[in-house]
Amino acid sequence: MTETINDNLVAENPFLQELVLQVRAQDNYGVYRSWKDELVLANFVVSKEKKRQISLDQGLDPQTQLRILYFYRAIAAQIEKQSGKLCQVAIDLSHEGFGWAIIWTGHLMVVCRSLRDAQTFGYSSLSKLANQGEKLVASGLKKIAQFPDAANGS
Amino acid sequence: MTETINDNLVAENPFLQELVLQVRAQDNYGVYRSWKDELVLANFVVSKEKKRQISLDQGLDPQTQLRILYFYRAIAAQIEKQSGKLCQVAIDLSHEGFGWAIIWTGHLMVVCRSLRDAQTFGYSSLSKLANQGEKLVASGLKKIAQFPDAANGS
Repeated sequence: MTETINDNLVAENPFLQELVLQVRAQDNYGVYRSWKDELVLANFVVSKEKKRQISLDQGLDPQTQLRILYFYRAIAAQIEKQSGKLCQVAIDLSHEGFGWAIIWTGHLMVVCRSLRDAQTFGYSSLSKLANQGEKLVASGLKKIAQFPDAANGS
Repeated sequence: MTETINDNLVAENPFLQELVLQVRAQDNYGVYRSWKDELVLANFVVSKEKKRQISLDQGLDPQTQLRILYFYRAIAAQIEKQSGKLCQVAIDLSHEGFGWAIIWTGHLMVVCRSLRDAQTFGYSSLSKLANQGEKLVASGLKKIAQFPDAANGS
């Protein structure tokens, strides 16, 4: 029963669909080709217990770093589709898991988040993941509406 | 004679002084303490011949990566001093030497440069280095004047 609910969530949520698309777009060897969308997103879900077990002394895992990139790329893609503005993404992360995630269009910072403990990146459920993504998309769109000159600036 | 001219250049140029400051600020072990400013900046100067010899197939050297960071930090610091606006720096570079250098204040992208072949980062002379730094500072200040709302935005 729970699984059926999750199935619908991923299939019907535009942000999660975008995230699946971003991950699959980088799947050059077709590893995920036969995977269901839920499985593709499985590693974005990290429980609190799991987070406590991740050592912050270790360097940032490249797979985690990629998931962070996909997450912000999905946000940028959604903002782009809804605003018509070309968005760029930059992720500046130290090995210690500190840094910045930035999305911009024109001269406007659309999303700017400082990251810490990036080793533990993940959300406690798919619905929380969708929620957080949608929140950042909405705040980015609001900022574009608020500063149209900087967003269009060239 | 040439040396005397260079001496004056570093001593009298605000941008180069800022860059020296940025490098020395990270000199935790006092390696540069007895070095003249010219020597501290020596590796920012890379001749065309030298650039041709640098292999782009190799990963980005951490020392080069640091010099790029210092360069953009010096630009940010100069913009900050002249505009009174707090500036942040992010550098997103792949191992292949591609990426972004970003300086922002508030919601405004003050400087945004795409980087390529970062392995060969450097300028053919100290005066070219100063020149390029000053140009980016000037364009950043212009942008803050042009988009005051986004620069102040919170």
